[in-house]
Amino acid sequence: MPAPEPTTGPLTPEELQLATRNRGMPLEALRYDTTPTGLHYLLVHFDIPAVDAAAWRLRVGGSVERELSLSLDEIRARPRETLAVTLECAGNGRARLVPRPVSQPWLNEAVGTAEWTGTPLASVLDEAGLKPGTVELVFTGADHGVEKELEHDYARSLSLAEATRPQVLLAYEMNGRPLEPQHGFPLRLLVPGWYGMAHVKWLTRIDAVREPFEGYQQRIAYYYRQDADDPGEPVTRIRPRALMVPPGFPDFLTRQRILDSGRVEVSGRAWSGLAPVSQVEFGVEGVWTPAKLEEPLGKHAWCRWTAAWDATPGEHLLSCRASDAAGNRQPTDSAWNYQGMGNNAVQTVRVLVR
Amino acid sequence: MPAPEPTTGPLTPEELQLATRNRGMPLEALRYDTTPTGLHYLLVHFDIPAVDAAAWRLRVGGSVERELSLSLDEIRARPRETLAVTLECAGNGRARLVPRPVSQPWLNEAVGTAEWTGTPLASVLDEAGLKPGTVELVFTGADHGVEKELEHDYARSLSLAEATRPQVLLAYEMNGRPLEPQHGFPLRLLVPGWYGMAHVKWLTRIDAVREPFEGYQQRIAYYYRQDADDPGEPVTRIRPRALMVPPGFPDFLTRQRILDSGRVEVSGRAWSGLAPVSQVEFGVEGVWTPAKLEEPLGKHAWCRWTAAWDATPGEHLLSCRASDAAGNRQPTDSAWNYQGMGNNAVQTVRVLVR
Repeated sequence: MPAPEPTTGPLTPEELQLATRNRGMPLEALRYDTTPTGLHYLLVHFDIPAVDAAAWRLRVGGSVERELSLSLDEIRARPRETLAVTLECAGNGRARLVPRPVSQPWLNEAVGTAEWTGTPLASVLDEAGLKPGTVELVFTGADHGVEKELEHDYARSLSLAEATRPQVLLAYEMNGRPLEPQHGFPLRLLVPGWYGMAHVKWLTRIDAVREPFEGYQQRIAYYYRQDADDPGEPVTRIRPRALMVPPGFPDFLTRQRILDSGRVEVSGRAWSGLAPVSQVEFGVEGVWTPAKLEEPLGKHAWCRWTAAWDATPGEHLLSCRASDAAGNRQPTDSAWNYQGMGNNAVQTVRVLVR
Repeated sequence: MPAPEPTTGPLTPEELQLATRNRGMPLEALRYDTTPTGLHYLLVHFDIPAVDAAAWRLRVGGSVERELSLSLDEIRARPRETLAVTLECAGNGRARLVPRPVSQPWLNEAVGTAEWTGTPLASVLDEAGLKPGTVELVFTGADHGVEKELEHDYARSLSLAEATRPQVLLAYEMNGRPLEPQHGFPLRLLVPGWYGMAHVKWLTRIDAVREPFEGYQQRIAYYYRQDADDPGEPVTRIRPRALMVPPGFPDFLTRQRILDSGRVEVSGRAWSGLAPVSQVEFGVEGVWTPAKLEEPLGKHAWCRWTAAWDATPGEHLLSCRASDAAGNRQPTDSAWNYQGMGNNAVQTVRVLVR
């Protein structure tokens, strides 16, 4: 199937099919420090694979001194670390772009934060012994399918420097329990700070390679491009974003918010994979005031923010935006790109105060 | 906001908003006897409420001898039962109707089966002592919002006869763990055999009443109607349905299935809230053959079915359909109704065999 071009038309049946099987995090769940497992966002390219944990092995091979074949028990017996990490889909915000790239049609909700437990990848690589000349590690999952006419197992690579950061984990637990199937059971990669595509689920192989990996998910998907022929730039770390819990209560169909007048504490979460969040601003009719920022749950997890608002009767347009210590700030307007990647334009919430 | 009329137009932005926050079960998850908690379908009318379990009480009142106010610990100390129950949204299949009622746009995936643990409702009602003249019990949840211009807490009623069936539970665990917030923490109603709207989540009150309950979710929503003025019939029990795990592997965007030729075991699940499933048929190009039916997980849970198929190269249209012991069989064409309820027309899966 050739790729459809971005469209200004209405949502297609293909996008609806994707939206009913992938899963956003309802934004009221921003109230939880860590997202309940069943509320975490989920994007699965192909099918959730059926993995027999007893027969499963992680193979480590390619440009290594010693090939490894590790059972889940052997991986669980290795040094154990737990990190709170915010994951976000690189396509979050895609459906707000005009024209709209035709793929999973996220609005704002493709995010979640969990406590992930696993063993540092670096020590497994040490044990295998990377040969001189290794430039990347390729991570292959058990999910298999076709994308833009290319049949493949889902696979992504990381540079040696990224892969050997101490916080990169081979994760087997989420929120204190074995991974549920949809989150990568029995083992997934965790690359704190990066968009979701890097955290390969259902890991089966790690291969050390001497040339940059050119697979579909690495070289074609997940690029910032202006058109199909633009060489572009790879998508890597998460751009800053703040989201608010929509205040008040909703109308079922329109999700319009209704709120009683008076002093309201608006709250939400903010994160960036590029640098610590340095500021969150809360906007009413486009007038920005600084929000109060709390300590993050961890170096790679979101932080809570709050803002006091005197809600007066009438319609109001609320928004929030994050900045990080590297000088990145969320834009008001979306930065369009051909695949709909990294659209971190500010969230707006329309509220009727009565 | 007045209700939009059913439409033959494309998906609306309102439907997309609903689709990104509600959650279908990816159909490959039909492989699991009980659905992992995070893969179970989810339909939330308003917001998932924030409930403080320590302060929470279940109030039982209205036409009773003794009003009750029960803590979660008190409910957990009562007799305990665990049942495997299949839940399905009454709106499952809505987006396949033409014209399409504008609401949550389910295709086929609004279903799941879990082990639910709780205490029988009947014994709590016994303790409260229903006064003579009680005709219904009204169940009120903590979720609050507006639907078709009516502000309300989500509430539904059951007749005395339905409510006092022994398998109707006040459920506090799902798959062996406390309910996650989105599934009704700390307590939800479980009405085996009925569509999802009856299983009120985030229960706060049970009221015995002497007149039939006329609330929005009881008297306006969840009706089989031909137009807005049709008095119609209330939606109650789950109509029969069979679904298959789509064979082979998918194309990411189109979900077209690709499969190697040869003998394939196609499998899926079938259920009915009206009577036990009596037959499942597997169809290839509309030619039906009986599938092999396994024992259900429980009286109110789905059963697995399998069918052997000699897949020959080319495009094929696969389908499946269930019948139950009460003589109900899934229709080939959708039975249209104004709210898009109970559309159990057969699933079709297009497969390219190579």
